[in-house]
Amino acid sequence: MPITLYDLAGEEADRRFSPFCWRTRMALAHKGLDVETVPWRFTEKDKLPKPNDGRVPVIVDGGRVVHDSTAIADYLEQRYPERPPLFDGRAGRALTRFVQNWTETVVNVGLVRLVVLDIWRHAAPQDRDYFRRSREERFRATLEDVVRDREARLPAFRAALDPLRRTVERQNFVAGDTPAYADYIVFGAFQWARAISDLELLAADDPVHAWRGRMLDLFGGLARRAPAYGN
Amino acid sequence: MPITLYDLAGEEADRRFSPFCWRTRMALAHKGLDVETVPWRFTEKDKLPKPNDGRVPVIVDGGRVVHDSTAIADYLEQRYPERPPLFDGRAGRALTRFVQNWTETVVNVGLVRLVVLDIWRHAAPQDRDYFRRSREERFRATLEDVVRDREARLPAFRAALDPLRRTVERQNFVAGDTPAYADYIVFGAFQWARAISDLELLAADDPVHAWRGRMLDLFGGLARRAPAYGN
Repeated sequence: MPITLYDLAGEEADRRFSPFCWRTRMALAHKGLDVETVPWRFTEKDKLPKPNDGRVPVIVDGGRVVHDSTAIADYLEQRYPERPPLFDGRAGRALTRFVQNWTETVVNVGLVRLVVLDIWRHAAPQDRDYFRRSREERFRATLEDVVRDREARLPAFRAALDPLRRTVERQNFVAGDTPAYADYIVFGAFQWARAISDLELLAADDPVHAWRGRMLDLFGGLARRAPAYGN
Repeated sequence: MPITLYDLAGEEADRRFSPFCWRTRMALAHKGLDVETVPWRFTEKDKLPKPNDGRVPVIVDGGRVVHDSTAIADYLEQRYPERPPLFDGRAGRALTRFVQNWTETVVNVGLVRLVVLDIWRHAAPQDRDYFRRSREERFRATLEDVVRDREARLPAFRAALDPLRRTVERQNFVAGDTPAYADYIVFGAFQWARAISDLELLAADDPVHAWRGRMLDLFGGLARRAPAYGN
C-alpha cells in the first residue's frame, strides 16, 4: 500500500509549493517508497489525519500517522533501514541538522521576502485571505511592500548562498557523491520558489544552479516534471 | 615520536592564533596523538619543511610532511583509522565540508573585520609590517579603519551565527553527542579571536558561548589553558 502524503497545493491542485513537503517527497523517492499525494490547502486544517500540528507534511504509512518533515525523515530512516540511508550514521544526522538550520535561517528567510507575493498569487482562492493576513501580521507590512525592492536584494541573497556554492562546486551534492537528506532540505527551498515564482533566483552560470539541475534530474525528473516556472 | 606541528605564534611564543592551526591541534588531540609544536611567524616562510605553501599548519609525522589543515585532517583519518574518527564516513566528511565553507565565508570573514587590529598588536615585531601591509592591501583600508565601527557590527555578526546557535542549542556538538572535525573547524575561528582580542564576541547567555565552553573543556582543557583573553 503506498504511503499517503498530505502535500500543500495551490489553486492548481498539482502545483506543490511547500519547502517542507518537498523534503518529504524527495526522501520518499530516495527510499524508493510508493507515495500517493493528497493536495491540501492552508485552510483545510480539519482534513489532516491526527495527530498533526495543523501543517503539512503529514504522512500515513499503513495506519501510522507522522507529521513534521524532520520527524518523518527520522521515521523513514528507522522504519526502512534496509533502503538507501537518508543520513549515513549519527554524525551524518547531526551535521544534516546544521544544514537544516542554515537553510531555515538563511535560505528560507531570504527567499520568503523575495517570493511571498508570488505565493499569494498561486494560493487557492479560499486560502488567499488567510495567507495574506497571517503573513502581513508576521512581516508587519503588506505583501506588496515586502517584495517591492526584491531585485535590489537579489545580489545579497545570492551572496548568502556562498557556503552552498563552495560546497557544490567541489562535490556533486551537499552530502557528497550521492544526494541525501541534507540535499533535499536545501533543494526544498529552491523548489518552493521555483513552483510559484518566475524570479531568476540563480544565475545560469552559478554552481548552485548546476546543483539544482542535478537535483531536478533525480528520480526520473520527479521535481522537474512538477508544475513550476522554468527559471 | 611525536608529530611536529608548525603553529602560528605571536610576540609571545606560546600565544597561538591561527584558526587553521587550531583545527589541526584539536584534531591531533582527538586522535590521541602526541604533538610537539614549533612556534612559527608569518615572515619565516623559509623555516617550514617542504613541501608547504608558505603557510601553516604544516605537520611532520615520521618524516612525512603534510600541509594545509584540510589535507592534514584527511591524512590523519587515513593514517590512523583505528583511532577516533574525525568524520564518521563519507557523508560525514562531505557535510563537514559544508560546515567548513560556512565557517570560512561567514564566521572567519566576519571575525577578521572585528579583530584584525588585535592580530597586528599581538603579532611578533618582525611580522607586523608584513601583516599590516598585506591586510591593508586586501581590505583597501587601514587596519584602524577596518575595525573602527566594530561594536556597531557585533549584533550582525552574532545574528549570522544563527545556524550554529540553533544546532548547539539542540545537540551538544555540531557533530552530535560527541565532537568531531566539524566542531574543530568552527571552534578554530573562535579560538583565533579569543587568543588575541578582548572583544566580547558572544553574550554569556548565548548557546554558542556554552558550546565554546564545552570545546574549551575538551582534552583536559587544551584550548582553555592556551594564552588567551578570558572572554
